[in-house]
Amino acid sequence: MSDKYQGFVSSPIGKLLVKNLGLPNPTKLERYEAGDPLVDGTVLVGGTGRLAESLPGLLDVLGIASATTAGESQRFKGLVFDATGLKDSTELVALRDFFTPLLRSLEDCPRVVVIGTPPELVKGPERVAQRALEGFTRSLGKEIGKGGTVQLVYVAEGAEAGVSSTLGFLLSPKSAYVSGQVVRIGVHGKAEVTEVADQTQPLAGKVALVTGASRGIGESIARTLHRDGAKVVGLDVPQAASELQALMKELDGDWLTLDISGDDAPQRIAHHLTEKHGGVDVVVHNAGITRDRKLANMSPNDKGDRWAQVLGVNLTAPERITRELLDQGVINAGGSIIGVASIAGIAGNVGQTNYAASKAGVIGLVDSLADELADGITINAVAPGFIITQMTAAVPFATREVGQRLNAMAQGGLPIDVAETIAWYANPASSLVNGNVVRVCGQMMLGA
Amino acid sequence: MSDKYQGFVSSPIGKLLVKNLGLPNPTKLERYEAGDPLVDGTVLVGGTGRLAESLPGLLDVLGIASATTAGESQRFKGLVFDATGLKDSTELVALRDFFTPLLRSLEDCPRVVVIGTPPELVKGPERVAQRALEGFTRSLGKEIGKGGTVQLVYVAEGAEAGVSSTLGFLLSPKSAYVSGQVVRIGVHGKAEVTEVADQTQPLAGKVALVTGASRGIGESIARTLHRDGAKVVGLDVPQAASELQALMKELDGDWLTLDISGDDAPQRIAHHLTEKHGGVDVVVHNAGITRDRKLANMSPNDKGDRWAQVLGVNLTAPERITRELLDQGVINAGGSIIGVASIAGIAGNVGQTNYAASKAGVIGLVDSLADELADGITINAVAPGFIITQMTAAVPFATREVGQRLNAMAQGGLPIDVAETIAWYANPASSLVNGNVVRVCGQMMLGA
Repeated sequence: MSDKYQGFVSSPIGKLLVKNLGLPNPTKLERYEAGDPLVDGTVLVGGTGRLAESLPGLLDVLGIASATTAGESQRFKGLVFDATGLKDSTELVALRDFFTPLLRSLEDCPRVVVIGTPPELVKGPERVAQRALEGFTRSLGKEIGKGGTVQLVYVAEGAEAGVSSTLGFLLSPKSAYVSGQVVRIGVHGKAEVTEVADQTQPLAGKVALVTGASRGIGESIARTLHRDGAKVVGLDVPQAASELQALMKELDGDWLTLDISGDDAPQRIAHHLTEKHGGVDVVVHNAGITRDRKLANMSPNDKGDRWAQVLGVNLTAPERITRELLDQGVINAGGSIIGVASIAGIAGNVGQTNYAASKAGVIGLVDSLADELADGITINAVAPGFIITQMTAAVPFATREVGQRLNAMAQGGLPIDVAETIAWYANPASSLVNGNVVRVCGQMMLGA
Repeated sequence: MSDKYQGFVSSPIGKLLVKNLGLPNPTKLERYEAGDPLVDGTVLVGGTGRLAESLPGLLDVLGIASATTAGESQRFKGLVFDATGLKDSTELVALRDFFTPLLRSLEDCPRVVVIGTPPELVKGPERVAQRALEGFTRSLGKEIGKGGTVQLVYVAEGAEAGVSSTLGFLLSPKSAYVSGQVVRIGVHGKAEVTEVADQTQPLAGKVALVTGASRGIGESIARTLHRDGAKVVGLDVPQAASELQALMKELDGDWLTLDISGDDAPQRIAHHLTEKHGGVDVVVHNAGITRDRKLANMSPNDKGDRWAQVLGVNLTAPERITRELLDQGVINAGGSIIGVASIAGIAGNVGQTNYAASKAGVIGLVDSLADELADGITINAVAPGFIITQMTAAVPFATREVGQRLNAMAQGGLPIDVAETIAWYANPASSLVNGNVVRVCGQMMLGA
């Protein structure tokens, strides 16, 4: 499951070939290990807007060192620019004036965050200027190199204090494979900003349900939520029972085996969570299947109905389970519901009309519930790009290589990259992060 | 400016190499010529929703032959499926049931249109199902082949009668290079459905301002709006005066030379249109420039300020001109404002932080005005992908080839493809088409 190409290009002969043939040369991405500081270096903060003044204090609470001016030959691990003060298109030049002199002073795997005002919440020339930020950050993400990431965080007026967990995620190695993304804070729903007592155990005392938890991305999600303090309830199909039990025993968790597309699955899950745990705080709809076939060949046959299977497991099941848990009040106040969409659900993919429809539907589920949920419950989704798992190891070599290289980081992501993004959503301090679909794709060329 | 690769692969030796080396094999796209019927073949209509019953009548008015059942071995040029009746994710199987048996009965360059309800206007399971359509259509666009296109048209309740000009565009060769797009009808603003007396001259008696009109895409826009009956007022910089005048004389149009980023440009344009034409009906902000450089190298130098130049011409000028024309009431009731964005403004591009910011800002201008415009004035934008022009002919061969092939049609588009999309927006029958950004990109892999 390791990226052999990346190993190859860092070998002496590989380096020679990369240089002479112009092969992609992926940077080894830094990733977070339990116990690490969130940011290993200094973050320079600039701009003039609603957040500029409070940013150093917010970062300090997270244990992140910051500066507001650049000393000569000083190097930075991250740059945060508050662009909420830009009121029309002529003022956008402030972006160039801030970034251009700093881009040669960045360490490896640098982090850039631009903070704006959600365009849809303002009017006229300010809306134009704020919308322009998206073209800027997506371009910078494609050219920054060195394993760097660039994000745009739109913060609604009044939601400034709710940005902390998002900065912690986007400035740290936890977001290694997340780039070119647009995050909205405080736009959907109404919630209070929640503080977390222990930054390293934000989920202490919380119960997290993870479907498809026995291996791959689901296993990584379970491990990461456990690392962050949660009691994990792993769910998988009966055939995966032994793997699931072994993992959940290791994580001091609980388990449940059933087919989520079964008629009585929502009731059984609700019953289990209520009886054994008194409710649930985090619900991760990770289980999913593919049954690829071009639409012209998608008729049901004796092997089953590829359309119905994929839509049933990937979309209808998470919908029904979510509604049942909400209707019965099983999800605790301040909880979070997290869907797993896909690049294919955003950009479409050959042979995946069924899968892409199901994953676009997951985005619809997020949109549908984000404005309706009560009690500070949030709903968000991740949309993975090319993530290296046992499933992708089965993809033919050439297709896999193209899929892995066609992104700004010229490499595939790891299950942990998806898991860290989910842990950010699950963090109680992300109470104003609602209605987002964030791609974990190394800023893949596929899809905006 | 012709696509030499496409000529090559249709030669005998080219065909051999394509077959044996797996080279991209682009289909020669059909394009509309004045006098052609809109659709050369039969369109099969299916589905059960708000539009299904009225669709054959709407197509008949456009001179498009339709059927509601498929005769044995009958072939179709287009398929239209009304999906507005799909109320939850289990009902999505109707897509498969309709399309799968028909996909082998399509002629070359087939057209597929799925009609849905805008997800943001409905709730719960219906919203999920309607949102899922996007993953379906984008996937089908990538696999349909043979120069086919697939679109999703979201029609708000009550706007059913306003869909006619959009069907005419999306089912005809006018949309040759538009695929995988999502169009919204009747979602923004309030307007009556406008009927057009002569379908071949929808702009008869209308005045159209086109900036950057002397050549390239601008010239094609001017010619196309003239074909559709408009009096064209071409605008370009003084250096292009002779080309501009020659073209406008040929088109029996009028011209105006000035730098749109000049302080007094908006007033001069407003004055000219008012004095000489009594107002304007169609405003096409086509003029644009690139000044590529990575952000690290974007400081102003003795050749000028690349950031300020690009933002000034591409974004601030269209903003100022639009507001001046609106403030002075120069744009007639029922008029249309049309911006030119770019794939780069959606997905970002290396070396184009300035350009992408300006083009994302154009999208912001559309968003900003779509809900505010009165008197049935609409605003929309096109976002071209790789369009073959003199500008792209200067791009190095390898980059150009990759740019041209990385889309579902494995070829670059032509200026006429952008122009036809603009003519669709400009059509008075498109009065409910407002707030859209449609890509003209052959469903490029870049961006969703």
